[in-house]
Amino acid sequence: MFAAEDLTCDDFIGGALRIYQPRHGYRAAMDPVLLAAACGARAGESVLELGCGAGVASLCLGRRVEGVALHGLEVQPAYADLARRNAQANGLALTVHEGDLAQMPAALRQMSFDHVIANPPYFAPQNGTAARDAGRETAQREDTPLAEWVRQGLKRLKPSGHLVLIQNADRLDDILFALHGRAGAIRILPIAARQGRDAGRVIVSSRKGAKTPLRLLAPLVLHARAYHAGDAEDLSEVAQSILRFGQNLPI
Amino acid sequence: MFAAEDLTCDDFIGGALRIYQPRHGYRAAMDPVLLAAACGARAGESVLELGCGAGVASLCLGRRVEGVALHGLEVQPAYADLARRNAQANGLALTVHEGDLAQMPAALRQMSFDHVIANPPYFAPQNGTAARDAGRETAQREDTPLAEWVRQGLKRLKPSGHLVLIQNADRLDDILFALHGRAGAIRILPIAARQGRDAGRVIVSSRKGAKTPLRLLAPLVLHARAYHAGDAEDLSEVAQSILRFGQNLPI
Repeated sequence: MFAAEDLTCDDFIGGALRIYQPRHGYRAAMDPVLLAAACGARAGESVLELGCGAGVASLCLGRRVEGVALHGLEVQPAYADLARRNAQANGLALTVHEGDLAQMPAALRQMSFDHVIANPPYFAPQNGTAARDAGRETAQREDTPLAEWVRQGLKRLKPSGHLVLIQNADRLDDILFALHGRAGAIRILPIAARQGRDAGRVIVSSRKGAKTPLRLLAPLVLHARAYHAGDAEDLSEVAQSILRFGQNLPI
Repeated sequence: MFAAEDLTCDDFIGGALRIYQPRHGYRAAMDPVLLAAACGARAGESVLELGCGAGVASLCLGRRVEGVALHGLEVQPAYADLARRNAQANGLALTVHEGDLAQMPAALRQMSFDHVIANPPYFAPQNGTAARDAGRETAQREDTPLAEWVRQGLKRLKPSGHLVLIQNADRLDDILFALHGRAGAIRILPIAARQGRDAGRVIVSSRKGAKTPLRLLAPLVLHARAYHAGDAEDLSEVAQSILRFGQNLPI
């Protein structure tokens, strides 16, 4: 468990959510907020987040949509504990399961969901520099192959259920390869820092067993100016609506 | 063979290329021009176009880059003949091979190329309405699976050779699936009619055997205005540079 002095308390969606995070561990930024915004869950539906960490994505979703049954799976006990504390501190119900998605806990194996969301680790095994913090390393390093995240996510979905992932754009081929023949109605939202730039991230949404053709959407551009303008806040209007005001991201 | 009265003569790249096309058959529009613009062939290199039709893409490339050895493969003899006549009429050298890419002609089987380009048919088998014209039907209908175009294209490449395809955006998953494990350095260029719209087409470039990560580029937007403005020409600046002035499309 994290000691109080190892935690910071940070505002998300304009302060509508206050999240305790490890000072030196894995710290959420925009990605889980964008992921939550792209999940189309409605009241009465259920959502499972694979690798929920401190719970940011699930809790953003819970704050935006009332009456959604939220479940998270987290392999690191200290983060699972933090997710529970964050849910409580924000007055939201989130059931956190501890375990490895490659060995799905028995409780989850008996459940199926309307939506599965995930922000899988971005760094392939044996690539880049290891994070000095072990918790951050686990959160960022791909020990479980990305394809396994996709497979396990689809397994936990009801027929025609929705899988939404956010990932580095350079993994788009691996995501589509893992979805091939298993899911359809694929929508790819490129996320670019600025107009005219390569996508840095992608949100890929799909439906289990669907046959609907793929759509490649217009990019979400995060910053309004063409170049970085010092420390001035220059989020684009649509990025602000999501990150500051908790709006959804229809895809 | 087409009779003279069944043909029209059309300007491409601002009149730098004049192309005979069947009045009622498959007629090239922007796509082969964009395909040619995205091929990075340089003097001294060789290019094979799979399904070259009347030769528009290969001849656009020949007009832009001098000293490239151009080969085309075309299954319909009347179109192969037209491609040869178009090459001659424009003073460009294009070797046109007749045959089916699924049964690669012996002459081509003994060759390998620096670049392979293709604009495969857009309509999946048993989908949409059949074209009334048999030639157009063959050009547009996917009798040979898209994956076979990719496989045959990669086969004809030298190690690290470049494959460039233009295709409907909704086939992106099939293209990436076919490339998986065989090619890398994948670059995806979404092509959108207007700013903020879904991509209608994609250009997918890749290198045989490469391991370089994928890049998802900023879209090429074809039209400058947000909405269709009557018949007024409203090509975006970059679209004009390619389609009217024969510039390349660096991807």
